[in-house]
Amino acid sequence: MRMYDLIEKKKRGGALSREEIHQMISGFVSGEIPDYQMAAMLMAICFQGMNPEETAYLTEEMADSGDRADLSAIPGVKADKHSTGGVGDKTTLIAGPIAASCGVRVAKMSGRGLGHTGGTLDKLESIPGFQTSVSRERFFEIVRQTGIAVIGQTGNMVPADKKLYALRDVTATVDSIPLIASSIMSKKLAAGSDCIVLDVKTGSGAFMKTLEDSLALAREMVDIGTRAGRRCCALITDMDVPLGHAIGNALEVKEAVEVLQGRGPEDLTQVSLQLAACMLFLAGKGSREACLAQAEKALEDGSGLRTLAAMTEAQGGDAGCIREPERLGQAPYCREVRALKSGWIVHMDAEACGIASMILGAGRARKEDTVDPLAGMILKRKYGEYVQAGDVLAKLHSSDPSRFPEAEAKTAAAFVIGTEQPPQRKLIYALVSDAGIDRF
Amino acid sequence: MRMYDLIEKKKRGGALSREEIHQMISGFVSGEIPDYQMAAMLMAICFQGMNPEETAYLTEEMADSGDRADLSAIPGVKADKHSTGGVGDKTTLIAGPIAASCGVRVAKMSGRGLGHTGGTLDKLESIPGFQTSVSRERFFEIVRQTGIAVIGQTGNMVPADKKLYALRDVTATVDSIPLIASSIMSKKLAAGSDCIVLDVKTGSGAFMKTLEDSLALAREMVDIGTRAGRRCCALITDMDVPLGHAIGNALEVKEAVEVLQGRGPEDLTQVSLQLAACMLFLAGKGSREACLAQAEKALEDGSGLRTLAAMTEAQGGDAGCIREPERLGQAPYCREVRALKSGWIVHMDAEACGIASMILGAGRARKEDTVDPLAGMILKRKYGEYVQAGDVLAKLHSSDPSRFPEAEAKTAAAFVIGTEQPPQRKLIYALVSDAGIDRF
Repeated sequence: MRMYDLIEKKKRGGALSREEIHQMISGFVSGEIPDYQMAAMLMAICFQGMNPEETAYLTEEMADSGDRADLSAIPGVKADKHSTGGVGDKTTLIAGPIAASCGVRVAKMSGRGLGHTGGTLDKLESIPGFQTSVSRERFFEIVRQTGIAVIGQTGNMVPADKKLYALRDVTATVDSIPLIASSIMSKKLAAGSDCIVLDVKTGSGAFMKTLEDSLALAREMVDIGTRAGRRCCALITDMDVPLGHAIGNALEVKEAVEVLQGRGPEDLTQVSLQLAACMLFLAGKGSREACLAQAEKALEDGSGLRTLAAMTEAQGGDAGCIREPERLGQAPYCREVRALKSGWIVHMDAEACGIASMILGAGRARKEDTVDPLAGMILKRKYGEYVQAGDVLAKLHSSDPSRFPEAEAKTAAAFVIGTEQPPQRKLIYALVSDAGIDRF
Repeated sequence: MRMYDLIEKKKRGGALSREEIHQMISGFVSGEIPDYQMAAMLMAICFQGMNPEETAYLTEEMADSGDRADLSAIPGVKADKHSTGGVGDKTTLIAGPIAASCGVRVAKMSGRGLGHTGGTLDKLESIPGFQTSVSRERFFEIVRQTGIAVIGQTGNMVPADKKLYALRDVTATVDSIPLIASSIMSKKLAAGSDCIVLDVKTGSGAFMKTLEDSLALAREMVDIGTRAGRRCCALITDMDVPLGHAIGNALEVKEAVEVLQGRGPEDLTQVSLQLAACMLFLAGKGSREACLAQAEKALEDGSGLRTLAAMTEAQGGDAGCIREPERLGQAPYCREVRALKSGWIVHMDAEACGIASMILGAGRARKEDTVDPLAGMILKRKYGEYVQAGDVLAKLHSSDPSRFPEAEAKTAAAFVIGTEQPPQRKLIYALVSDAGIDRF
């Protein structure tokens, strides 16, 4: 096997065999296959695609390139949840505790934010004392004890994905569905859970801008998970508009607590409940309706909130911040963005809101940037609402007032005000499972 | 300008501007743009192509990446001739001296063979004493004195092509018409001649296997040359069958001399005369018919042969070998390949003949290999002839008898013997000029 021949084969539209994919991934991770050959292969894949077998093989080979987590020390069914990345997406902080409080084990490895999307680790670390780096033994112990723990990736997991992603990022080969699907799913397979619920975001603030692409990505990921023997499904949810009102780490923790207290925004509450219900359903906790009812009950009776507080305490965080989220603190500087004219909010650019929050300090333009836990914004008005000129559209928070002008301009431009009431948007478009697509 | 954005643009089918191509090529040659980004770009070009403007810009930028030869010290019109590479193609040794003897100046920089195709420098160096590495001043002096000199590339010419070609060679991105055309033409533009005659080979032994691809390549190259202000045309000639009977360095010099003596094989004579006539025509020596007549006269009256002998002597070679080619010597070992059955030769695999000759020592599998000047083969029978079982098809020559078994098997397999007389093949398919395609 020569890498040259594999590039040529893919360039001509051929399908790579399992053995060829194995040689390619192991050779690339070991350094035998140079970056320039892999870059040519990645571009050929962008044009020719990969069939479902190839994508599944690629995913397994990537998952096998490093350590795989063995969660067998945790009794019960383990369910994972993954979002393709959105703005204001704090559903893990809500759906995870709800599912855990209903008896599913959530041993979750999470990531940090980059660009306009946030990361669960950054959000949790805005809680004073919260540790996202704990030993494997302690991780298991917390899950056994509270039903859930959320930590950063440990050990040498999926090195093939790290190396491939770094190369895709500089060679304009990121937007290939088989490459995206295998990147996400290789990490999910290596993370070891039995059930995997995917939240595939669609719209202006999502990586996948169209419903068609989002469905295609969801189908590929569910197919990979199912072929690998996991129970897997995907919800296609809206990210044309940010989820909830808060964007920024501590601000989002506060909003997640509000949802778990039963007084959060409707959109965020609904998506979180549906995700939790999917986790319960895959874990065999009954019909979809029964699972949704269990999730709703865990929200109403406060058991989801208690689980979040217990996890926070077990991971060294100040659980008082969960009971009284104002203890998370507030950024020293605020600025209001107001409507310049009256009318209906006919479009919101979710990505622009994410970028404005990043500028305020809530996110990272580059991996090495540090995050300001208190920075971000609260959206006071959202898509579909009528505003008067001068109404506050959003309130910006930052520790660095020099960042306001750019963030204000970006935020103001994210609201498009028109003369006609826009149509209502869907919040959840479809559920994709191995049985097919169930449109909402 | 970020290389990432250029890759993305090309991937989406956009056209790169002159400034973008300039930044890309200068950044790549300087090492600022890494191989992996250029590899992704090359693969994107393989899929999306380049329009005529982009291809012309790329060629000029490549030609400008190093030194350009200034031939102004040589009076008169300078004409160059380039073949896309074939098996048994010794036309430079014939058409060059003929054109020079008719008053065109041929200041030619040539290359070495690689793989199944030979190189003019290797052929000339089979003449004892022949120097292909001479100073610029001496090069000009020889051209002024004899009308022609053939030397190796000097100085730092077209470094962008060297670096790009090395990368294409390992990333399966060789077979893109704009990349092939710009690679060839950048060297021709840098070499400085006013007129450029291209011999685009087509068929099993050529890089371009189909007439359609050969025409497309010829059109792109002529377009590039014309845009660069050169007089340029291309002949599409057959390389389904090796040209002439000799393959191998000294063997080909002998055959070239035979042609110049008026007793060479018909196919090689005709193609060489047509190429010489094109050189004369572009140089303004009259109508195409008049130019062909001049070339034929130079062959008949021996002036082409005398010019080859004069050039050989001026470049330090033993001109006696041109007058008496048997002085070039003969390989110590020979082996005959015979027909296993009677019938018509319905197909000849020219590439296989080239590879067999390479195995015998006449060519290089890798750049660092050395060449045996006396190795090669003489084809005793060719396409379209009827053979009896046991007839000699080819005679193999080598200094290393251990190479015969593999070369014999390869040669035998290159002759396909059938029961029906095959159709006659065309030798020259078309002339491509800025006026269009003139089919033969």
